[in-house]
This record gives sequence, C-alpha cells and structure tokens, in this order.
Amino acid sequence: MRKNTAGIDIGGTNLRCGIVGEDGTVKNDLLTALDKSLTGKEKKLDFIIRNIKEFLKINKKYKIKELGVGIAGQIEDKSGNILFSPNLRLRNVPLKIILEKETGLNVYITNDLTAITYGEWRFGSGKGLDNLICIFVGTGIGSGIVICGTLYTGCSNAAGEIGHITVVSGGRKCACGNYGCLEAYAGGLGIAKIAQERASIDKAGFKNIIDKAGGKKSRITAETIFAAYNMDGDKNAAALIKETGLYLSDGVISAVNLLNPCAIILGGGVIEGTPDLFDIVKNEVNKRAIKASASNLIILKSALGKNAGVIGAAGLAATLGGQI
Amino acid sequence: MRKNTAGIDIGGTNLRCGIVGEDGTVKNDLLTALDKSLTGKEKKLDFIIRNIKEFLKINKKYKIKELGVGIAGQIEDKSGNILFSPNLRLRNVPLKIILEKETGLNVYITNDLTAITYGEWRFGSGKGLDNLICIFVGTGIGSGIVICGTLYTGCSNAAGEIGHITVVSGGRKCACGNYGCLEAYAGGLGIAKIAQERASIDKAGFKNIIDKAGGKKSRITAETIFAAYNMDGDKNAAALIKETGLYLSDGVISAVNLLNPCAIILGGGVIEGTPDLFDIVKNEVNKRAIKASASNLIILKSALGKNAGVIGAAGLAATLGGQI
Repeated sequence: MRKNTAGIDIGGTNLRCGIVGEDGTVKNDLLTALDKSLTGKEKKLDFIIRNIKEFLKINKKYKIKELGVGIAGQIEDKSGNILFSPNLRLRNVPLKIILEKETGLNVYITNDLTAITYGEWRFGSGKGLDNLICIFVGTGIGSGIVICGTLYTGCSNAAGEIGHITVVSGGRKCACGNYGCLEAYAGGLGIAKIAQERASIDKAGFKNIIDKAGGKKSRITAETIFAAYNMDGDKNAAALIKETGLYLSDGVISAVNLLNPCAIILGGGVIEGTPDLFDIVKNEVNKRAIKASASNLIILKSALGKNAGVIGAAGLAATLGGQI
Repeated sequence: MRKNTAGIDIGGTNLRCGIVGEDGTVKNDLLTALDKSLTGKEKKLDFIIRNIKEFLKINKKYKIKELGVGIAGQIEDKSGNILFSPNLRLRNVPLKIILEKETGLNVYITNDLTAITYGEWRFGSGKGLDNLICIFVGTGIGSGIVICGTLYTGCSNAAGEIGHITVVSGGRKCACGNYGCLEAYAGGLGIAKIAQERASIDKAGFKNIIDKAGGKKSRITAETIFAAYNMDGDKNAAALIKETGLYLSDGVISAVNLLNPCAIILGGGVIEGTPDLFDIVKNEVNKRAIKASASNLIILKSALGKNAGVIGAAGLAATLGGQI
C-alpha cells in the first residue's frame, strides 16, 4: 500500500480534514463547521483537537504517520507555533506540540495559503512549474509564492499577503489597520460591505439583492451578489462584480510587474462565485501589465478548489515529516 | 595587483564609467552627458561605444579584462541583447556582441536596477544580507530583488518593476500605458508633472517655485520642488513632498506585505533630494505594514549613491566574466 497522510485545513468557517495519497488524491474527507459560539483559547482548541482525533479514528485503516495542518494566520516556521490567527482569534498557541501529544503523529503546521499553494504547485494547476503566485480570493485575499522551485515564505515566514497591497491610496479602512488594501475592495467581506453601503443609499435599486439576503441589508454577502448576478443578471450586482474584477486586476498586475512570475493561479470562493472575474483579470493583465513582465505569463484557474489546503498540508507533512 | 573591472551605467541622461576594484571601490570614473540631439540607433550606439572605448584607453594601465554594463530597459538574460530601452528608445540591439567586438573584453549586460541592487548588496547597505529589495527613486522608480542569496530576476528577466504597482486604481496615466502606477505619483517625472499642473491652477501660490524654474511653469522639475522646500520651506513644495512620501510608503508597504523582505534599501535622486522622504517612508511602514511582515525588517539608505550602478555592473561582470 502506498503512503497516506492526513491533511487539515482550518479556515475561518470550517475545519476540513482529508486522507491524502502520495499522488494528491483525497481518499476520505470530512467537513465540520467550526462552532462559532465557542469563546476562549481552550474551548476552541478542544473543539479542533477533538474533531481531528475523531477523523483519525474513523480512518485508522490508513495507518497515518504524518499530519499536516494549514491554518489562516502567522505561523512560526520551525516551532509550528501559531503566533496570531486573526480569524480564530488565537495567539501564541504551540499547536504542533499539542497535536503531536494528542495524536502521536508527526505534525507539520503551516499557513493556509502556503498549504494551498503547495497543493496547487505539486498536484494542481502549477504542476511542473517552478515559479508561480497562487492567489486565493475568499473572505480575505492571500497568496503563496513559488520561486526557483521552492516555496518562498519570506524573512519571518509571513510572505504572500497580496490582500494587503495598496490599490487605493488612503482608501477604505482594512481589517489589517491600513487603508486602501486590495482585500478591502475585492475580498468577500469587502464586497459584502460595499454592497451593504450601496443598499443603504439605494434601497429601491437593491431590492432584489436585499430580498435574496432574507430582506435584511446587513445580511448581504458576496454570495448574495453572485446569486443576484448569476440568476437574475442584476445590474447592481453586475456593476459590483465588474469593479471587483478591476481591483483584483490592479493587485495581480502589481504582483506581475514586481515579480515577473511564470504563472498566476487564481482560486477561492470569490473566483468560483462567478466565472466573469477570472476572465476580467486575464483580460486586464494582458492589456495593462508591462509587456516584458507578462510576456511568458500564464494565468490559470485553481485545479484543486476547496481541497487545495487539505492536499497541500498533507503534501508538506509527507515531504517534510513534521517540523524540525 | 588585484583585479579591476570596468563598470558602465547608462541612464536616461548620463553615461557613467568607472574602474572598480574587487572590494567595490571606484578607482577612476568619468561622467558623460548623453547627447540628446542624436537620433537613430546607429548614432546613439556610436556615441556610447566611442565614450566607453575612450574611457578604457585612458585607463589602459588597469589591464581590464571584463566590462559590465547596466542599462535602463529590458535585457535578454543569456544573450545580453537590449530588447527595449524606453529612455534611450533602443530596440533589439545585440549590445554584448557589439561591445565585445569593439573592446575585445568579456562583456556582461544587465538591467540598471539589477546592477544597482548587486552593488548595494555586495558592497553597500545590503552587505551580508541575503534577502532584500533595493528601490531607487529617480526620474522613474525601479527595484532589484535579492532572495535566498541570489539576484531574483523573474521568469523573463523583467522582475523588479515596483514603479508600476498600482497605488491609485484608475488614477494618473503612467508612461507604461497603465493608470495609477506608483511612478506616476512619486517618480521625479511624476512629481514634476503634478507640480506643473498645480502651478497652472495656482500661479500666485506657486510663484516661488515658478521663479526657481526660471519663470516657466513647464520647467518645474522634482529638483525645483526640493530646492524650494530645502531652501525656503515653501509650503506647496512641502505638501507635495509629503504626498510623495505617502505614495512611496504605499508602494513600499505593498512590497513588504507581499514579500516579507529582511531589508529595504532606498536610494536615487528623489530620495537624496530631501531627507524627509526617507523618514516618512520609514515611519509609515512601521505604522501601516502588517506587523508580521515587517517584524524583522530594516530600512536602509543606499550607501553607494550615484556609483551603485557602476560598482554593481562591474561586480557582476567580475563574478560572471561575461554572459554565457
């Protein structure tokens, strides 16, 4: 039997577990919604540990030895400590040590975008390439960078924060504290906020969108906008998607001009929400990036979709056998 | 006698030549203004070749074997061909082949910012670091990137165009054809254009600045603005310098968040024009960059100044002994 590894993707909303083969195929997976009612470090960690152990128990037959975890936030490289995870509101958690003790496995902890990028690079759209940027647009926007055939993680393991490049100097306030970040305009949460603001000003025009959100402006999400556009061709939704595409293009063009990558991989819920976004970005990059910087560039869609993080976390753990 | 190498820096305005020792010291140098009246590829190349040969003749005693040339524009990696140099309006020039034939030396041709970055990295502020971005703000804005102890030049030798990251989505038209690029706001030419526009609207307020430009609005340059600020504390000049600093900060913060470098080196005429700019950028990055991305970051001034390109081009030629 070939070797299998467990991969865990801990996002802001879900805990996703998978048994991943050496070829990157997911053999068994499980999606658990994170219990948002839990407060306090201990209870949140208990929930995560319990669910991971339960998943491993169900999949005992695979004789797992390595466990990889991708988690949104800043991870200390060697120790596998969570320094800060804004989504989960966790600070200074020695997750690797805790999980190794609880599961008896070798554990590798990494940033969720690093895991996703590794997955796409080894088993997805980036297979065979040794220079790429993998950009995922979900609630927030993040990226992973492969340079010279290795994951580039920066001076303090924090590289890839493409969601926090400035696209509108002095613009909208971002969750990071800065102003005018890409994420504040083109991330799922940014799109929702902009739509809610517009709906407050133009209730009549946004009636269809507000209806789709159960009649409450405050419940409009990026998904509401995609549904209104995809199902009804709603004009306000269409305008917002077009704008989102242009901001996303600004961000991608900035990265292309600065880094001259061989490939850009685009994925995540917002990209999957409407196919138009991918095409807008592709066209704008071809039109507006510096010719020399984009001359050899290919722009690809994520191949692994929602499983990219699980596959990548497992892949990293299988290759590295846990942090040193 | 230790080995010496010739370094040439061909900018938009000047041809700068130097004899550079193994330790990066410049032993003899020569600055020649490029003859702007020359039109046509042949005449421009003749001028460049004649001046380089003249410089080598004067410095015969150094027994030069390698010649390095940094030139603004896109250079083909292996061949040393100029693909396009916008400043010099040269396209498809096999400069390496031409110069090797004319001088009998091993010739290495590179982009000017790559040469500057190599110089600062090996002999200047970046000595001993293996991860940095060297940003030069002159007429335009460019950068060079060192990652994992090597110059990172991208998929088609075009990386580093930090002047063309978007800081104002849909903003001012840039020379590259795109809109809202950093260079259009904080490059020397951008600063001059913005000042000229403001002087057209507010002649009285800009009297001091217009006077400094010989009474003609169209002659206002970035240097005029720096002089009005440094000499007279001119309010309009001060406001423009502050704005320039904030745009520059947006660009630097974007690069820091995306790449999480260990060091940023800032240099070039605009940075040297007024010390305030360096301080503004340093403060804004500390204030607005993601904490994790900037936690180990140091921000340094260029140590080699105007000689960085000559030193770096010579250093690259000495190390690589000409392109292969």
